[in-house]
Amino acid sequence: MLKQKRIRDYGLKIGSLETGTLNAITDVPGVKVGHATLDDGAIQTGVTAILPHSGNVFKEKLIASSHVINGFGKTMGTIQMQELGTLETPILLTNTLSIGMAADTLIDYVLEKNPEIGLTTGTVNPVIGECNDMFLNDIRAKALKPEHVRQALDAASAEFQEGAVGAGRGMLCYSLKGGIGSASRLMELDGHTYTMGVLVLSNFGMLSDLRINGKAVGQELKQFILQKQEEKDKGSVMVIVSTDLPVSERQLNRIIKRSVAGLSRTGSIITHGSGEIVIGFSTAVKIPHQKPKVALSLIRVHEEDLDLAFRAVGEATEEAVLNSLVTAEAVVGRGGNERPAFKDLIEEFGVALL
Amino acid sequence: MLKQKRIRDYGLKIGSLETGTLNAITDVPGVKVGHATLDDGAIQTGVTAILPHSGNVFKEKLIASSHVINGFGKTMGTIQMQELGTLETPILLTNTLSIGMAADTLIDYVLEKNPEIGLTTGTVNPVIGECNDMFLNDIRAKALKPEHVRQALDAASAEFQEGAVGAGRGMLCYSLKGGIGSASRLMELDGHTYTMGVLVLSNFGMLSDLRINGKAVGQELKQFILQKQEEKDKGSVMVIVSTDLPVSERQLNRIIKRSVAGLSRTGSIITHGSGEIVIGFSTAVKIPHQKPKVALSLIRVHEEDLDLAFRAVGEATEEAVLNSLVTAEAVVGRGGNERPAFKDLIEEFGVALL
Amino acid sequence: MLKQKRIRDYGLKIGSLETGTLNAITDVPGVKVGHATLDDGAIQTGVTAILPHSGNVFKEKLIASSHVINGFGKTMGTIQMQELGTLETPILLTNTLSIGMAADTLIDYVLEKNPEIGLTTGTVNPVIGECNDMFLNDIRAKALKPEHVRQALDAASAEFQEGAVGAGRGMLCYSLKGGIGSASRLMELDGHTYTMGVLVLSNFGMLSDLRINGKAVGQELKQFILQKQEEKDKGSVMVIVSTDLPVSERQLNRIIKRSVAGLSRTGSIITHGSGEIVIGFSTAVKIPHQKPKVALSLIRVHEEDLDLAFRAVGEATEEAVLNSLVTAEAVVGRGGNERPAFKDLIEEFGVALL
Amino acid sequence: MLKQKRIRDYGLKIGSLETGTLNAITDVPGVKVGHATLDDGAIQTGVTAILPHSGNVFKEKLIASSHVINGFGKTMGTIQMQELGTLETPILLTNTLSIGMAADTLIDYVLEKNPEIGLTTGTVNPVIGECNDMFLNDIRAKALKPEHVRQALDAASAEFQEGAVGAGRGMLCYSLKGGIGSASRLMELDGHTYTMGVLVLSNFGMLSDLRINGKAVGQELKQFILQKQEEKDKGSVMVIVSTDLPVSERQLNRIIKRSVAGLSRTGSIITHGSGEIVIGFSTAVKIPHQKPKVALSLIRVHEEDLDLAFRAVGEATEEAVLNSLVTAEAVVGRGGNERPAFKDLIEEFGVALL
Repeated sequence: MLKQKRIRDYGLKIGSLETGTLNAITDVPGVKVGHATLDDGAIQTGVTAILPHSGNVFKEKLIASSHVINGFGKTMGTIQMQELGTLETPILLTNTLSIGMAADTLIDYVLEKNPEIGLTTGTVNPVIGECNDMFLNDIRAKALKPEHVRQALDAASAEFQEGAVGAGRGMLCYSLKGGIGSASRLMELDGHTYTMGVLVLSNFGMLSDLRINGKAVGQELKQFILQKQEEKDKGSVMVIVSTDLPVSERQLNRIIKRSVAGLSRTGSIITHGSGEIVIGFSTAVKIPHQKPKVALSLIRVHEEDLDLAFRAVGEATEEAVLNSLVTAEAVVGRGGNERPAFKDLIEEFGVALL
Repeated sequence: MLKQKRIRDYGLKIGSLETGTLNAITDVPGVKVGHATLDDGAIQTGVTAILPHSGNVFKEKLIASSHVINGFGKTMGTIQMQELGTLETPILLTNTLSIGMAADTLIDYVLEKNPEIGLTTGTVNPVIGECNDMFLNDIRAKALKPEHVRQALDAASAEFQEGAVGAGRGMLCYSLKGGIGSASRLMELDGHTYTMGVLVLSNFGMLSDLRINGKAVGQELKQFILQKQEEKDKGSVMVIVSTDLPVSERQLNRIIKRSVAGLSRTGSIITHGSGEIVIGFSTAVKIPHQKPKVALSLIRVHEEDLDLAFRAVGEATEEAVLNSLVTAEAVVGRGGNERPAFKDLIEEFGVALL
Repeated sequence: MLKQKRIRDYGLKIGSLETGTLNAITDVPGVKVGHATLDDGAIQTGVTAILPHSGNVFKEKLIASSHVINGFGKTMGTIQMQELGTLETPILLTNTLSIGMAADTLIDYVLEKNPEIGLTTGTVNPVIGECNDMFLNDIRAKALKPEHVRQALDAASAEFQEGAVGAGRGMLCYSLKGGIGSASRLMELDGHTYTMGVLVLSNFGMLSDLRINGKAVGQELKQFILQKQEEKDKGSVMVIVSTDLPVSERQLNRIIKRSVAGLSRTGSIITHGSGEIVIGFSTAVKIPHQKPKVALSLIRVHEEDLDLAFRAVGEATEEAVLNSLVTAEAVVGRGGNERPAFKDLIEEFGVALL
Repeated sequence: MLKQKRIRDYGLKIGSLETGTLNAITDVPGVKVGHATLDDGAIQTGVTAILPHSGNVFKEKLIASSHVINGFGKTMGTIQMQELGTLETPILLTNTLSIGMAADTLIDYVLEKNPEIGLTTGTVNPVIGECNDMFLNDIRAKALKPEHVRQALDAASAEFQEGAVGAGRGMLCYSLKGGIGSASRLMELDGHTYTMGVLVLSNFGMLSDLRINGKAVGQELKQFILQKQEEKDKGSVMVIVSTDLPVSERQLNRIIKRSVAGLSRTGSIITHGSGEIVIGFSTAVKIPHQKPKVALSLIRVHEEDLDLAFRAVGEATEEAVLNSLVTAEAVVGRGGNERPAFKDLIEEFGVALL
């Protein structure tokens, strides 16, 4: 997307399934992604918005589910998502200390579009995910403001940048620069082609653990760069999963749990230090906010066919992490802290990925 | 407390255990509660702060746990609480649409007291609970501002008001006015006296279901007041449990789950419409933020002795709900919506509680 | 049913909804219950079988869910039930040390009816619940044999006995004799009448806590009978919930969680000592074991309409517990241990229930 | 152990931590493993027993936890383990249809050693894990009898066989022969050396997905062997984790969840078809069954130090799977179904592992 060099452009193929056109979460029809990025000295942070469909998500909710891999995180909105099985807002990703502001702004955004909230109908459940970007960003400054959230929401489109952008601006991945990455897989089932899309906000991993398609690239690269680059792994990642497969919230939960296979194959040991949380939604059916005249009837795929979705989500997650790594540019931030770009290092030291 | 007439002042005794001195959550040494209340025409809302101890909670965390009875709520901070078993901030209660603002303000509050956050140590997990007060309050106006959160935190003390105050200002209980209520129980164990304290933010129930110490007072009262009083039950309540009993986070979780017995005995059927969430903490041990020189050794009561705590939390929750009901004054709010005070009605219609 | 005097025969009405014809779990069309009872000196135990429909449950599974109120129990089969959302065998209830034998026999039973299991299709997930009847029964003797399980399965019918029968033979309830009890509620929704049925195996509670429709009958009765009757509460109960309401497994889980409201209203404080586990199933749809030609489409009720089901399950659970108590006859068992019948005591001491 | 050629004997080193002396779960002091194996034509099955310490586990329980990766399984005993955080019996692994018999036999075994059970103290919670071995074994025959369970328990020792033995006799791994495998890691912490041990019962994976230390060995091997070898992946594995690290049950749960990283690195996509369940215990402290005179005080490692345990459990799980694969011999079973030995194939076709 947008002419960035991605992992496949290095000749690598992750897994066995075909990708969608963009090889991104936005291959799922209707899904859009937008960023707002702050890049100003010690301020290296941002917001990323994922719009699950182009309509009013509060009025037409989607089947959704969340899964906690490591709960040392501050993600908001999952209690209701688990209870009711639905998503009713866009999803925002940002830095840890901006979740309050992001939630407040998302509430305003939904109130504007739904004047009946708080008058004739109930409230709204904002969904916010986060990682901690304090190494590169002066997170205490809380530089993100409501206008940046609006900017990310307004900027949402099918094609979007990856790497050190949006919420990914200040994030690290395998001791190098990380951030936003995405990928998708196609699933042929009963004569239909469905799509599984994944977007990650990567902020985890130690260089020595990095594996690319099985190859211990991190070990190799580590010989060339200084030990100081290897900060303690904070083990944080947000994984957003989208699909148009018709699934129940229970089935969706089974699917999104498998994203951990993709994370692990890039070398993650799922460290203690921060949250690893997955949020998924299916665009196959829209659940009306108001009780419909005829009771809702939901199609679900046969349980055994989920294996295809399990494979897809693992592959797409693995590739999304690698895309976040390979697209990110070097960033210098707070107190001169810096993280090099993976793409620069492998070129500089002639490290082969294949 | 503070000269309000509480359920025991009507001659009722709930359960079999003795109460603490104040018969409030603040009987647990160190726990304080403060309110900020907005009462201005269509604005009937507020914030309630629970301070778990008088020190720096971020630096000296407490064993904590949460439990979801009904997850149709927006409570923040429970993912990390379940993963790490600790509480590291005061707990705020407020209206549903103010959670973002409340979280943002609580983050600022903790940042100020802990200048190392975001520089040499990680971030902070704000804990915010909420109920929806839209019937009496113009919740869309989002009238609560950071200064109100600060005001509630600063006002915290051992004695505090109950009823239509703080976060309870606009809440309903059994179709009447509800809000903040509290109670406590003493537990004699192995020669020590421990305390179990409960504070509720009540916003649930239909009048016809109300039971006071088993008596179907709601049925009786319903004959006298108009049907229109009985809005649809939104089924929302926050229950905050505090104890100085030395327990593990697993044991604490077992304890706080039993609060549902107290809710049920007042007549709750745990309706769909909003969140019922319990958050508990033990003040018995302080968990240092930094790794201590000697490994932490945590005392825990014998599992069978938990029965005493189970009884205590059920009784205190039941009485806290009744206190929230019986102390609340009548409120007229948004669009002239009004809820009468239970205390006024039983006097007017001569309803006996015993 | 079967001419036993039940709680309604004492003039009591629990809750506000109408009951089904039998006021039992078997009011849900197709559900059957059977017992095998051992009553021989120190051997006071049994098995109760719940058949969820009259066909082959393995081939035509039902939407199902389980909920753990207190997990100090040995119930089998819930891991798969939560993962796949289905029930594929009858449910057996028995004493704690007989679960292995019961599971083994249920496996044989299903293998016989499904010769393809283990050859062309996978295995089967037996569902077994239990309570500990060691006070009245020589549980170490493990007197129950496969033929008793078969006998319970074969005896299943719409009308069945309550009280000290089947798995309930040796169980206690509020320090008196307990065991099997059942009740049902009708739910009018969108022009249809649906049924909620509950069966309990009661083995919990202390006499002093017993409440009947709010009245502190236990306190009253306790004055007349010896303190020694009040053994430590083992806090154990199995609750089986059945409905023909079309619900998803997530919705069903929300419903069955509300059974705790009914338990609490009879006075339970949910003690430590043993398991309190709920298993529910919906007969509305049959899920074929083999992948069907057309993808499954499942109707589900609107989420807000669940309130009716929440009320129904609470009321039916409360009444089922009271039926287990009021129908049970006195039993003398192991070492001369005995438990009186509630019905005998209230008559002897002239205790009014109204 | 016992002179079998294991993955390290091929020159491979998995991960970065040192192994214990045996490189097996039994490196954790006191842990023992025993097998009973049936190898007779269509009967290819068995039982494996893990003894957590050499004393009476019922009287001296261990901190324990379980985690469900994929719940399409019939594992018994996890409800109580999660509620109370303890293990009170040996752990048995066997085939899916033998769980009832295994539970029944384990109950008898514990009753014999604890004559007070069912008389002066409560019951016991047997812990049984399983995988489905129907491809090679006539699982419907239910050939395993109580004496085989006894045999496995009696045979337990520090050194034990891996591969096609015990419960692993009929299991498959990556479309080849699998079964029992084990590994361990040492953890240096605050001047002490602790051990993390893992034992797996492997029964999952498709050949094409197999990765050995990152290398796509499965893809390579697949070129040489017939497609028919690749049955549908049933995705089943039991992972038993043991450590002497002093941890709370919550911390232990965090540790055992990380075993999935090891499974994933061997190529697993966590398919639908059967259970993937982890059970862990810590031998650091013995929890007395009876209430001790002095309240229990439990040491726990600092939360951040768990990263070392997270790395250890992932590495040990990965290596345990590979050991199960590389030690297993070819087996011909039910209906002539057969699975080749990985060790034979790589030799025959000259596949390099490095």
